[in-house]
Amino acid sequence: MLKPPMIVLNVKTYTEATGINALILARLMEKISKETGVDMAIAVQASDITSCAKEVSIPIYAQHIDPIKPGSNTGWILPEAVKTAGATGTLINHSEHRLKLADIDTCISRARDIGLDTLVCTNNVATSKAVSTFSPMMIAVEPPELIGGDISVTTADPDIVRNTVKAVQTINKTVKVLCGAGVKNGKDVAKAIELGAEGVLLASGVVKAKDKEAALRDLISDI
Amino acid sequence: MLKPPMIVLNVKTYTEATGINALILARLMEKISKETGVDMAIAVQASDITSCAKEVSIPIYAQHIDPIKPGSNTGWILPEAVKTAGATGTLINHSEHRLKLADIDTCISRARDIGLDTLVCTNNVATSKAVSTFSPMMIAVEPPELIGGDISVTTADPDIVRNTVKAVQTINKTVKVLCGAGVKNGKDVAKAIELGAEGVLLASGVVKAKDKEAALRDLISDI
Amino acid sequence: MLKPPMIVLNVKTYTEATGINALILARLMEKISKETGVDMAIAVQASDITSCAKEVSIPIYAQHIDPIKPGSNTGWILPEAVKTAGATGTLINHSEHRLKLADIDTCISRARDIGLDTLVCTNNVATSKAVSTFSPMMIAVEPPELIGGDISVTTADPDIVRNTVKAVQTINKTVKVLCGAGVKNGKDVAKAIELGAEGVLLASGVVKAKDKEAALRDLISDI
Amino acid sequence: MLKPPMIVLNVKTYTEATGINALILARLMEKISKETGVDMAIAVQASDITSCAKEVSIPIYAQHIDPIKPGSNTGWILPEAVKTAGATGTLINHSEHRLKLADIDTCISRARDIGLDTLVCTNNVATSKAVSTFSPMMIAVEPPELIGGDISVTTADPDIVRNTVKAVQTINKTVKVLCGAGVKNGKDVAKAIELGAEGVLLASGVVKAKDKEAALRDLISDI
Repeated sequence: MLKPPMIVLNVKTYTEATGINALILARLMEKISKETGVDMAIAVQASDITSCAKEVSIPIYAQHIDPIKPGSNTGWILPEAVKTAGATGTLINHSEHRLKLADIDTCISRARDIGLDTLVCTNNVATSKAVSTFSPMMIAVEPPELIGGDISVTTADPDIVRNTVKAVQTINKTVKVLCGAGVKNGKDVAKAIELGAEGVLLASGVVKAKDKEAALRDLISDI
Repeated sequence: MLKPPMIVLNVKTYTEATGINALILARLMEKISKETGVDMAIAVQASDITSCAKEVSIPIYAQHIDPIKPGSNTGWILPEAVKTAGATGTLINHSEHRLKLADIDTCISRARDIGLDTLVCTNNVATSKAVSTFSPMMIAVEPPELIGGDISVTTADPDIVRNTVKAVQTINKTVKVLCGAGVKNGKDVAKAIELGAEGVLLASGVVKAKDKEAALRDLISDI
Repeated sequence: MLKPPMIVLNVKTYTEATGINALILARLMEKISKETGVDMAIAVQASDITSCAKEVSIPIYAQHIDPIKPGSNTGWILPEAVKTAGATGTLINHSEHRLKLADIDTCISRARDIGLDTLVCTNNVATSKAVSTFSPMMIAVEPPELIGGDISVTTADPDIVRNTVKAVQTINKTVKVLCGAGVKNGKDVAKAIELGAEGVLLASGVVKAKDKEAALRDLISDI
Repeated sequence: MLKPPMIVLNVKTYTEATGINALILARLMEKISKETGVDMAIAVQASDITSCAKEVSIPIYAQHIDPIKPGSNTGWILPEAVKTAGATGTLINHSEHRLKLADIDTCISRARDIGLDTLVCTNNVATSKAVSTFSPMMIAVEPPELIGGDISVTTADPDIVRNTVKAVQTINKTVKVLCGAGVKNGKDVAKAIELGAEGVLLASGVVKAKDKEAALRDLISDI
């Protein structure tokens, strides 16, 4: 399990992090994580899990799993398949891949049963509270309108972070709360921690940065 | 491109063909394909493409691609990602993963643009004819009610195969027609060819067979 | 608001309750509700709301609303539209029409804002607890495998009713818990109440009954 | 069946055309259609079909039907239900409500079987050609990026109209081709006819107009 403050990088389907580029980025994160002692995980495309997991020691996450069991599910993402490929955790219900309520429940249960970390994305305080009743390992609250934007959630809407932390704690104190959307630099991460979050989930701030190493180092410069 | 009569095996998300099991099955098909000269392709889960493509020379297909471009598409299957991982083709619109019409059009175009073979699944004569206007490389007609069953489409509904071949030819003679659903043995494959199909798409008939090698050899025993 | 013990009849898209048949059934329920003082509501198809609401005084519910605002949403169900047509409440997240988590949150908020009763369907104790954090007016727990079947949830799985009542009460005591799936007669309803439910949600037990009036009267014979 | 040149107005879920407003707009179209002899149809929300169909003699269309038969389909739109409510036709596969290929086939078949006119929306020449193999009564090609915008498809992309007409005619000469997206005035309609279309599908150009009657009269001023 990741220990706070944790940095989870979701590389989406960006060209800058597909195939060999995913591996290069994973190696970079591994280097920085080792040097600094800050826990980092990278969520890569399903087809990139095997190569990243084979060569890199930081946690490799899937970006999504489907609420299925082994069987007739052509083209869907089997939890056991990403685990076997080397993933140690998975995002669930990302803003770009929302799930039905019953399927979030199933995905968390299935992931827990086979030993995958669970990081469930949510869009506001209310859905974060609802998800916390399922006891995932982590919840990352991300206001959809701020995702991919220039202003960090910690600046644009600090209350959503603060109130999510409070709401989740009323239900289940073991769930770690992360925040995301627009997070780009060390100041944003420091503010997230100050607001009660135990880490951040981010994507373009690193993946689209010209100098990815500098972006990663800056991220953790204030913690 | 596969040359007729071709055998395309869709391993779905069966445990018997996940992770190392996918690779073992791919190797077996490679051996038999080389020995017999019959073209064979295997459609594996996204997370198994890399390892299969690295070690096996027969075509590795994805089971699905999403109608997306590189970018913000967390957890979806990017055509470029499966290509980079080593896939040379992809199933599209499988019965267990139906797509919207506009998305089938986009998936075929995107696959063609980046050099992936396209095998589009359909459920009847009418949808096969519609898909043939998009000029995919192959169409596999599979009556959904027969998929995974004990009776081959070639026995249960030979007319659907015969009429699909005819209907597709009125639109586009370059599209190869395969059939599937319940296909299990050499007799079924021989009948498919006799009905005008140029190959078969199958899954459980091989993947769930106790002796997969025997099942594969039997499949091509009459061609 | 319905007062316990309440009977909510979901007529789905059965021919026996489409068009004029929906109206006949609504009138029958109105008659029995008035005679017996038991609160009853009927959830009809969108296109039948206007005619039922115009002629019948019991609550008419929509079977579904979409998480949308007025605007460009061709063919979707606008909450304001069913309200204007005369609905006083709506089912949300029925087993045959599951919604994404964020959309359940939005649907409940939108319904509350415009004054529609909310009855959210759930599949188990965990999802019931999660939904109760949104404070809908009612939750109906229905194990999907028992829906439309011959054995009532109250017989097949009494614990799911009992435990849902308990779980919801730990979160929000104002939410009324109903149960459904296989409910057909007065004994089932009496058992539901005994297990702590405040009402039932049912469908085929009445709609497919040869004598609908007898079925309805039997339902409430033990309360 | 509508005779060319036909005007089909899709009122979406705009407040300006929900409930009594839908009826007012339908009456206005009826008045203008009678005066001018131009065929007009209005596609209203499911919950508004009954009241519009009861009071107005122009064709009332549903905005969508689901590919279902009578039965257990809570909250979905049954073709028979909109027919019974008074609709004489239906949009299928609108840009805001895309369907799977197999479902378009089923919707067209079901609509034809029960006597509903079919107007299938498409996004480009290729999908228009594909849909024409199903022989719907009408196809309306609408480039999604122009829908709701200020520039008419007839100005922004006249070739898509011209080429759709040609492509559909190579498959099935009985299918009428309409065009839509940004259509607002008489000049746009005249240009559509000149490009080979037999009518237009429009929405905001009328529904959001301050003076709806003037907008409608202007639309048909050049035909």
